Amino acid sequence: MSPYTPGEQPQSGKVIKLNTNENPYPPSPRVAEAIVSASNRLERYPDPLGTSFRIAASAALNVEPEMILCGNGSDDCLTILTRAFVGQHDRLRLPYPSYILYRTLAEIQSAQFEEVPLSPAYQLTDAFASPDPRVKLIYLPNPNSPTGTFIDHESILALADKMPCPIVVDEAYVDFAPKSAISLVKDNPKIIVTRTLSKSYALAGLRFGFLVAHPEIVRTLCKVKDSYNTDALSLAGATAAITDQAWLRNNVSRIRQTRDRMTISMRGLGFAVLDSHANFIWCTRADRPTKPIYEQLKTRGILVRYMNYPNWSDGLRISVGTDEQIEALLVVLKDIL
Amino acid sequence: MSPYTPGEQPQSGKVIKLNTNENPYPPSPRVAEAIVSASNRLERYPDPLGTSFRIAASAALNVEPEMILCGNGSDDCLTILTRAFVGQHDRLRLPYPSYILYRTLAEIQSAQFEEVPLSPAYQLTDAFASPDPRVKLIYLPNPNSPTGTFIDHESILALADKMPCPIVVDEAYVDFAPKSAISLVKDNPKIIVTRTLSKSYALAGLRFGFLVAHPEIVRTLCKVKDSYNTDALSLAGATAAITDQAWLRNNVSRIRQTRDRMTISMRGLGFAVLDSHANFIWCTRADRPTKPIYEQLKTRGILVRYMNYPNWSDGLRISVGTDEQIEALLVVLKDIL
Repeated sequence: MSPYTPGEQPQSGKVIKLNTNENPYPPSPRVAEAIVSASNRLERYPDPLGTSFRIAASAALNVEPEMILCGNGSDDCLTILTRAFVGQHDRLRLPYPSYILYRTLAEIQSAQFEEVPLSPAYQLTDAFASPDPRVKLIYLPNPNSPTGTFIDHESILALADKMPCPIVVDEAYVDFAPKSAISLVKDNPKIIVTRTLSKSYALAGLRFGFLVAHPEIVRTLCKVKDSYNTDALSLAGATAAITDQAWLRNNVSRIRQTRDRMTISMRGLGFAVLDSHANFIWCTRADRPTKPIYEQLKTRGILVRYMNYPNWSDGLRISVGTDEQIEALLVVLKDIL
Repeated sequence: MSPYTPGEQPQSGKVIKLNTNENPYPPSPRVAEAIVSASNRLERYPDPLGTSFRIAASAALNVEPEMILCGNGSDDCLTILTRAFVGQHDRLRLPYPSYILYRTLAEIQSAQFEEVPLSPAYQLTDAFASPDPRVKLIYLPNPNSPTGTFIDHESILALADKMPCPIVVDEAYVDFAPKSAISLVKDNPKIIVTRTLSKSYALAGLRFGFLVAHPEIVRTLCKVKDSYNTDALSLAGATAAITDQAWLRNNVSRIRQTRDRMTISMRGLGFAVLDSHANFIWCTRADRPTKPIYEQLKTRGILVRYMNYPNWSDGLRISVGTDEQIEALLVVLKDIL
C-alpha cells in the first residue's frame, strides 16, 4: 500500500511555505483566549460530542446541532465516513484529478476506488453519475484540489438523484468559493458535507473538522468514531473560531484578493493558471517542465507543491500567501525562468 | 452494532466523578505553559510524526524515538493497530473480563473477537495461548480493567513465544502498577505496548496516547494513521508532561496511597475488593445487588461505574479520587448500606 504523503512540513528555518494551503494570517484572537481558559481542567475527559461547537456552528451555519459531527480534522471525518460506508472489496468513486488521500482511505479499508475523469471544464460527466451497485460512497471535493475548480449545486443535486449511495461533498476550501452545499443537506439526506478549520479559519495546527449530515446518519457515524475524538483544547478553540465570522470574512477576503492578483501575475510569467475558488492556484506550463521550477524554488527557500497526475497533467499547486510572500515568489520566479 | 459507551461525562454541576478513571489532581504546570506557547502558531500544520514528543518520551522511557508512534489518545493507537492487522472476518483475541472497547473495534472492522476467560486469579490460561491462524491480533490490557489485576511479564513472554501474531499490551494504567512491558519490546518484536497520558499524567482532556513497537512496525502503522493525527497543542502539552517525571511520580504515589486505604475501607463496608494495580478498584457484593448502590450514589451526586459482565460478575468500578472525595463516598455509602 502506498501511504498518503502530505506536503513537507519543515518545523524550523526561514521558509516561505506555500505547499500545504495553510492560511498566512493568524486565527481569531478569541481562539487563543479560549484555549488558555480550557487548559485549566485538562485532567477531565472532553465532551464526546463537542456540544459547545455543535451549538456555535449551528448558529453560524444555520443547521441543527444534531446534523453536526465533530472530527479530529476533516481527515478524521473522511476516515469515519469510509469506515462506516465502505467494506472490504466495496468501491469508492472519485473524480480525477482529485485529492490523493481518498485513494489511501480506500486502500486502508481494503476497498477499491474508481477515478472518473472530470470534463475538460472540470465538471461532472454522465459517467460519474452512472449507477453501480459496488459503489458505496462518492467523494466530491468542492472546490476540487489541485484544480481549485468549482462544481455547481445543480450538478450535485442531479448526482444525488441518480446515485443510491451517500455523496460526500468535501468542502475543505469552500469559504474561498461562491457557496456551500450545507444548505442542500436538509432536503437531500444522501448529501454529506465535510469541512475543516485548517484553511479558512487558519487553524491547521488545531486539527478540527466537522461534517454536516442528516441526524440519523450522524448518530450512525457516532458509533464508528473514537469516543473522545476531539480534545478539550481543540474544541474550545474551534468553538471560539466559528463564532468569529467577521474575522473569517476579513481573512478570506484578503486571500481572495491576493489570489486573483497572483493568478494574473503567474499568467504574465507564462504559466497556464486555472481560475481558482480555493486558497491555492494550479499552475502548468506547455513550454518547459515544472518539476525543476519546484526544485529551484525549494533551494531558494520557497516551498510549493509539485504534483504529477498521470494521463492528465503535472504542475505546481501554490498556496495563496501574504502579498509579501507572493511578491517574493514572483521575484524568484522571474530570476529562474 | 453496539457502540462502545464511555462513562457519563457531565459537563457541569457539582458531581464527585469517580466513573471514568480520571486523575483527581492537575497535570504538571509545565503543560499549560507549553500549550500557551504553542497557541501562537496554530495556522501551521503540526509535525505529522510528533518528533518533539518522540524525543522526550525516548529519554523518559529509555527506548529509541523510532519505536514511538503518537496517537490522538491511546484509543487512536488501538484503532490504528486494529485497522493495520485485522481484516474483515479475521479475529481478535481478548481476555474476559476486559475493556469493552476492543469488541467495538473488532465490530467496526467487521472482524470477529473471541474472549478467553482469565483464570480465577485473573492470569492467562493455556487457552489464551492456543495457536489459531484466524487470530491476527491479541489485546492484553495490563493492568486489566475492570479488575485492576496485573499479569506478570513471564506470562507475556511465554504468550509471545507461542502466538505468531502481535500482542498489544494496553498499559493505560501501568504507572500505578509494578512495571511496564516497554522494556520487553526491543527483544520481542511481537510485543507492542500502548500508553495514554489520560490517567497517570492527568491529561484526559488532551487526547494523547502513544505506542511503543519495533521501528519497522511503527513505519507500517504510519501508513494507516491520519497524516496529522495529533494536534500542535496536544503535542506541546504531552511533550511537557512526559519530561516532568517528578510530577508524575508524586501524583501516582498519592493515588496509590489513597487506593490502598480506600480498598481497606470498602472491604470494611462489606464489599469484596480485588487488589488493584490501577487507579480504580473493582467492588462486588455477595449479599446484595450493586446496581441500586450505583443509582443511589448517583442521586447523591457521586458517579461511579456500574458494569455487568455476563457469566462473570457485575459490580462497581470506582476511580481513586482525592482523599476528600473518597471520604465523602464512604460517608454516603455508610448511609445507603
